[in-house]
Amino acid sequence: MASRETARPRPRVVIIGAGFAGLSAARELARHDVDIVLIDKQNHHLFQPLLYQVATAGLSPADIAQPIRSIVRKQPRTQVLLDSVEGIDKAARSIRLASGAMLDYDALLIATGARHSYFGAGWADRAPGIKTIDDAISVRRTILLALERAETSRQEHLAERVEYLTFVVVGGGPTGVEMAGAIAELTRAAAEAEFPHITRHCVRIILVQSEQRLLPSFPASLGGAAQRALEALGVQVRLGCRVTAIDDDGVIIGDQRIAAITVIWAAGVSASPAATWLDATADRAGRVIVGADLTVPGHPDIFVCGDTAAVIDASGKSVPGIAPAAKQMGRHAARTAVARLLGKQSPGAFRYQGFGNLATIGRKYAVVDFGWLRLSGLLAWLLWSAAHIYFLIGFRNRLIVCANWAWNYVTFDRGARLITGIDRRV
Amino acid sequence: MASRETARPRPRVVIIGAGFAGLSAARELARHDVDIVLIDKQNHHLFQPLLYQVATAGLSPADIAQPIRSIVRKQPRTQVLLDSVEGIDKAARSIRLASGAMLDYDALLIATGARHSYFGAGWADRAPGIKTIDDAISVRRTILLALERAETSRQEHLAERVEYLTFVVVGGGPTGVEMAGAIAELTRAAAEAEFPHITRHCVRIILVQSEQRLLPSFPASLGGAAQRALEALGVQVRLGCRVTAIDDDGVIIGDQRIAAITVIWAAGVSASPAATWLDATADRAGRVIVGADLTVPGHPDIFVCGDTAAVIDASGKSVPGIAPAAKQMGRHAARTAVARLLGKQSPGAFRYQGFGNLATIGRKYAVVDFGWLRLSGLLAWLLWSAAHIYFLIGFRNRLIVCANWAWNYVTFDRGARLITGIDRRV
Repeated sequence: MASRETARPRPRVVIIGAGFAGLSAARELARHDVDIVLIDKQNHHLFQPLLYQVATAGLSPADIAQPIRSIVRKQPRTQVLLDSVEGIDKAARSIRLASGAMLDYDALLIATGARHSYFGAGWADRAPGIKTIDDAISVRRTILLALERAETSRQEHLAERVEYLTFVVVGGGPTGVEMAGAIAELTRAAAEAEFPHITRHCVRIILVQSEQRLLPSFPASLGGAAQRALEALGVQVRLGCRVTAIDDDGVIIGDQRIAAITVIWAAGVSASPAATWLDATADRAGRVIVGADLTVPGHPDIFVCGDTAAVIDASGKSVPGIAPAAKQMGRHAARTAVARLLGKQSPGAFRYQGFGNLATIGRKYAVVDFGWLRLSGLLAWLLWSAAHIYFLIGFRNRLIVCANWAWNYVTFDRGARLITGIDRRV
Repeated sequence: MASRETARPRPRVVIIGAGFAGLSAARELARHDVDIVLIDKQNHHLFQPLLYQVATAGLSPADIAQPIRSIVRKQPRTQVLLDSVEGIDKAARSIRLASGAMLDYDALLIATGARHSYFGAGWADRAPGIKTIDDAISVRRTILLALERAETSRQEHLAERVEYLTFVVVGGGPTGVEMAGAIAELTRAAAEAEFPHITRHCVRIILVQSEQRLLPSFPASLGGAAQRALEALGVQVRLGCRVTAIDDDGVIIGDQRIAAITVIWAAGVSASPAATWLDATADRAGRVIVGADLTVPGHPDIFVCGDTAAVIDASGKSVPGIAPAAKQMGRHAARTAVARLLGKQSPGAFRYQGFGNLATIGRKYAVVDFGWLRLSGLLAWLLWSAAHIYFLIGFRNRLIVCANWAWNYVTFDRGARLITGIDRRV
């Protein structure tokens, strides 16, 4: 320990993952006399709450992503590494990276997020989830190509046409609700304006939810409001249903087969392999179980934050897997780490401050739960837009997202509606 | 012929390719009483002159591309097909499409552009050219990943680092000049602001030109001006040199081996397979040799336009392969086709009206040749910008490109600088 301190003038905090938790930790740490190393597999931070807009051609990837280097360019003592983690040696306080480099740390913060988890083998290929820009571009391609194929499919291939125009979204949480709403608006606009052989009555969008209501993390009244709004857009909501099979032809819901080219996964997630790296206890969703100070039990130098962590906070409640919680955890972990490394007073146990819960349906309807106030409709949508634009990192992105949204709202022109790359299926 | 006329109330003109020539033909045809079918392999029209900006992270793909359906949405009697051509039966006036459909025509206009052509096998994978959005995104990924790898490469791997920081551009025409200049600015900005271990002296950009000067299609004085501007940006210009080999390690220029990860092809192009479809005579670059009325000899119902055509126009000059020429050819072919189909007076032989020739070097220098006026420097750059923004299709795109450029110019922030997808090499 002594020899490492001489080699490094300042304690080094390594952050794995530049999502909401990792970036908020990096920002907090930059205010203190520590060296920061920020590692991510991607070169960009992603504003994930708007990723469904990229998947449905409302926004371009660059509107909701910003290079990590550009975000921290003015932060002192912050080094950015494009790399991925192969393993962690807790005893030696050292990380093995995919590039072959070894990196020592005095404190480690893991915030590597979550990936989708599937119940069946082969489902991942067939029913992509939306976690990265590549995911979103691939889903966008599938949806847009399905419209093109349906438009040009010949009359004798009616079954094929139905398959192209059936969109199945699995999962009735905020992501599933937002995807289903956005697909409804995209296909309706396309049918009205640009695809003369497609009418809105040809398009079928099915939202499959295993529970008896949509948006289980919201009050029941808002779940009902979201369902009515989706149905008004033409979405078929199937409550209390489970997808039991996904194959080349489509999905099986209960005992009904639905032929569909486009199947989108918005159901279960599982945490990144952090628990394996750390040889730590994980919950059923793969999240590392950490104490209320966000450290791994027995390892006060290792913090886990965001979607990778399972935390019961100081108020005894489970912290939800949403962006504001991730930011607060990152900041809290950074403060605790600094207190330990620089001998200051520790901030104690983490306490999540929930400001509200939002989900949007299409381009003029949202549901918002502030606890003391529940809203649905256009006003909620305006609040939702303001909140998202405000929290988008980077002034420039805010401007462009604003301009894009204003433009889309007025004209329904979808400039991001490009089919690029090659898709195997359609 | 009679039976087909009864089956179709109006004559049908089929356009293959929605580039500059194809779209300008479609716009002209929409003013007349004909049915139009516009076929393209992509769902979007691409403003190719700015594609190098996407490849160097200055603009996002959606800034320079627009869905074809949205461009022609208000055009009467225009049908858009996302499909590709398998063959053409000139006698039956019928096109076989990849989807299996057969499409009859009364007049056919082929404007399928050009692809890069390489002197050696395997060069295409190693030295991508920039013709499509996927090409540009792939080149952008290669350049940005090379910077990331160089930044994190360790001291003992100096040779590797040099390879990452060497950028070879093959071809000294406008595309090569613009690419080299844009790479110079991108890497300089990156070195100054965000990559602490890269200085501008570590970066080597080599522009290889087989002729004795840059920009052979411009007056010699402007070729010299472009060279001086590139050299001021740190680009090494190698005139009278040929690349004799491209392999995994880099390129061989004459008898010198240069180790480089990033090699970009901006040299020869060859036309699309239109000559094969038509069984027509082609020139050395694969372009279909057409008469001054832009029709294939012996086939007054088949027109070839843009980069796919080799034309000597009414003034006896060879028509250049640039966007304004493609637009003029498309319009002329459309008028000639309409005259023949609707029994009006033919516009006669095509005469190319050259308004000027522009190329840009970095963010404040361009060369412009109007014939009567030759400009280089900032004023030329301002003209270049105005011209490009004006000609970008779609009001919205103009606004966003303007905003992006203004923003980049002021801040050097490159919002489009995202690494997405997977690359085999770096």
